[in-house]
Amino acid sequence: MIANISLSRTPVVAGRIGPAQGLTAALAERAAAWRHEELAADMRELVRQCVLDWIAVCLAGAHEPLTRMLAEEAREQGGHAQATVVGQGFATSCRQAALVNGAASHALDFDDVNMSFSGHPSVVLVPPLLALAEARGASGAEFMAAFVAGYETLCRIGAAVSPGHYTAGFHATATLGTFGAAAACAHLLGLGAADTAVALGIAATEAAGLKSMFGTMCKPLHAGKAGADGLLAAQLAARGFTSRADAIEASQGFAATHGPDFRPEAALRDPDCGLYLRQNLFKYHAACYGTHAAIEAARCLTERHELRDEDVMRVVVHASSMSDSVCNIAEPRSGLEAKFSLRHTVAMAIAGIDTAKLTSYSDAQTDDPDLKRLRERVRVELHGECSELTQAEVVIKTTHGATLRQRHDAGVPERDLCAQRARLERKFRSMAAPVVSAEVCDELIDLVDRLDELPDLSPLAGLLAGVPLDAARH
Amino acid sequence: MIANISLSRTPVVAGRIGPAQGLTAALAERAAAWRHEELAADMRELVRQCVLDWIAVCLAGAHEPLTRMLAEEAREQGGHAQATVVGQGFATSCRQAALVNGAASHALDFDDVNMSFSGHPSVVLVPPLLALAEARGASGAEFMAAFVAGYETLCRIGAAVSPGHYTAGFHATATLGTFGAAAACAHLLGLGAADTAVALGIAATEAAGLKSMFGTMCKPLHAGKAGADGLLAAQLAARGFTSRADAIEASQGFAATHGPDFRPEAALRDPDCGLYLRQNLFKYHAACYGTHAAIEAARCLTERHELRDEDVMRVVVHASSMSDSVCNIAEPRSGLEAKFSLRHTVAMAIAGIDTAKLTSYSDAQTDDPDLKRLRERVRVELHGECSELTQAEVVIKTTHGATLRQRHDAGVPERDLCAQRARLERKFRSMAAPVVSAEVCDELIDLVDRLDELPDLSPLAGLLAGVPLDAARH
Repeated sequence: MIANISLSRTPVVAGRIGPAQGLTAALAERAAAWRHEELAADMRELVRQCVLDWIAVCLAGAHEPLTRMLAEEAREQGGHAQATVVGQGFATSCRQAALVNGAASHALDFDDVNMSFSGHPSVVLVPPLLALAEARGASGAEFMAAFVAGYETLCRIGAAVSPGHYTAGFHATATLGTFGAAAACAHLLGLGAADTAVALGIAATEAAGLKSMFGTMCKPLHAGKAGADGLLAAQLAARGFTSRADAIEASQGFAATHGPDFRPEAALRDPDCGLYLRQNLFKYHAACYGTHAAIEAARCLTERHELRDEDVMRVVVHASSMSDSVCNIAEPRSGLEAKFSLRHTVAMAIAGIDTAKLTSYSDAQTDDPDLKRLRERVRVELHGECSELTQAEVVIKTTHGATLRQRHDAGVPERDLCAQRARLERKFRSMAAPVVSAEVCDELIDLVDRLDELPDLSPLAGLLAGVPLDAARH
Repeated sequence: MIANISLSRTPVVAGRIGPAQGLTAALAERAAAWRHEELAADMRELVRQCVLDWIAVCLAGAHEPLTRMLAEEAREQGGHAQATVVGQGFATSCRQAALVNGAASHALDFDDVNMSFSGHPSVVLVPPLLALAEARGASGAEFMAAFVAGYETLCRIGAAVSPGHYTAGFHATATLGTFGAAAACAHLLGLGAADTAVALGIAATEAAGLKSMFGTMCKPLHAGKAGADGLLAAQLAARGFTSRADAIEASQGFAATHGPDFRPEAALRDPDCGLYLRQNLFKYHAACYGTHAAIEAARCLTERHELRDEDVMRVVVHASSMSDSVCNIAEPRSGLEAKFSLRHTVAMAIAGIDTAKLTSYSDAQTDDPDLKRLRERVRVELHGECSELTQAEVVIKTTHGATLRQRHDAGVPERDLCAQRARLERKFRSMAAPVVSAEVCDELIDLVDRLDELPDLSPLAGLLAGVPLDAARH
């Protein structure tokens, strides 16, 4: 028999319990307060960039096998045609659209990142918000304010429970993502601080997702699940459902049960740059994030010194010893393994292969004899004192006797938002091209550019739904 | 910046990973092997009793506010009319029906219990199975075999992770319930052992639910969520989705991340009575399970000695000190608090008040002066050496100088299944009477009695859907 059992507790409590202003309530109050007209210009631009990047990865991921399975499941379950399923040519209930689109956009693992919570923000925020906005006819400005509310809440919770939550085995995109989605959807539904706290409470008891699932279809499923569950939490809170208003910090609440670290004061402190969205990192290489700094450094040297294959005598990549279990496959035997190989991706960068392109990671390309010969000249040196997976230094000895060095930190966000915008547009066109026409590409870019002014999101949703299936890459 | 980050891992792996026969795979193999024709007669009777009891609590819970909110949400989302929403007069998608019916049946916390996993089995198993069986035209026999597959899997996982999982703060009905529902639904879908292991893997990464939510609407939501998520896991596994095949025992898998205890050998050992379903406990008093032994003992003495109020000089209730934080409210001020009061419920039993009836726990009844005077004569003595919340001894000193003693252990299942059946039928009629006619009551009892022979469950579902809303208690 089991100790400490309280199997029977009558569930329906008229009031909503918990202290007036614990961490959960404080975060709810901040989340509910966001207004589009108060967003700084750079914040608005960053939201638009997140949305543009999300569309790119979602369009490209829409025809992955896992996405098709989830879309078939949604079709079988049915639902009112409230929200577009991207690239599948049908609409379904908000919650199912959030599930499918969330998984689709994380399928390629090419979506944006925020280190404050060790996870992927846009894939848990945009899908439920887009679905809800489409269903309710919300404006672009309302969508944007809700996105920021969700984004900042998500990162603040991340700051409170990091690094223990992630290192203990929880996939923060899934778990903390549920809170972010709940806060975002609560904002779009116009909930006040008290109801937003209830939504966060429901999210706290729905939040799930194991890091040990990496390498299976469950990783992208996590993003969809977080968005759909966060949406449910907000919808139920709007209907008067009850939960604890101190669910994060309560005794045996979310923080206490999901990892060793909890510093509520860290969640209430502003980040150095004022807001977490300013720390958003986009991915420009379709490989593991741990390879990005080395790719950037190698590409920089190659371009600056106009290096060709025959100029390169040997290459040393200095990286964190944390890379060893993450992205240090010395002799990748497949395109998939190439994405987790510092040696191989650095060789690709020097050879001038487009590391942003999904097709660059084919098995055939990985097995290319010239590329393999170049790879043989790359050595990886790992350093225990370097604790950042996002940092690397590449040293190239040329056949002419020169020693070229370049460091890069892929954890530092781009300060030049115009340059970032241009780079994201290139990524967008590259990823969208196989699935939509150049005209639709232009229209999508234009619509996102005018997001603040859109009275509703139906034109955007219409273009995303209307992707002709026969144009799919698969 | 956060240590140990592996943000980018390509998710789509063609194969399914994990060892051939770890705990998860072993449980999947056992789950997939159940056949109705191999079920012993007592097991079949127990399944029918679980279903009958589930219908009773679901009908009674169908009109609770939380159920109505979830039903409204399901209506708003829409879905193919695949499965009946009990007592709401409509059908929706399987997953939504499982969610609403699961929450409805746990709303009153009057549903069955199994101590092996410190939770409520039928409310997580019947709703998704009933929905799936209705949608697919499965037979009663198929439903029953799937129920046993889910039940035994759920309890075996409970044996492996208890007591630490529950005491650490996880609501096992929610978390482990997701595995049970996944195994049950996988069985109904006819999945083999390998696909069942995938379903358990998906369940492992969906499983969530905090015990700190007790006292809010989230507690019953947990039951619905476990059923709906388990159903999703099985459906996705059937479509070829991938997950780990060792999700429970893996490094940073479910067990390692959800509590301090993990004894896989306990999950593979048979319980003393051969099967866990034989340990199923039904609730006959609409109060906290911790009060049940004392109620039973007091009722036994009162009936045997034909005691009236004026015969009782004083009463001592000996119970576990664990009761103190669970069900030892000395002076309950509401009907809700009365359910968590050993003193009050024992006074009710002596006064001959029906402790099975929901209406016996009204605020007015709790404030009744005669009952309060009787309660004044009841003293509770807690004992640290008694570790069982399910055990109590009641000692009554009569005004005639006699000392009457009775012990009871509410953790011991009834061996006489005929007696149990009769008692459950009384409970069923008492709970169903306010919402369905006597004829429908009889029909439902008859249908459950013939469950093994039913070619499909549509007659049962039809009666459950057809409850006239205007007859609802609220």
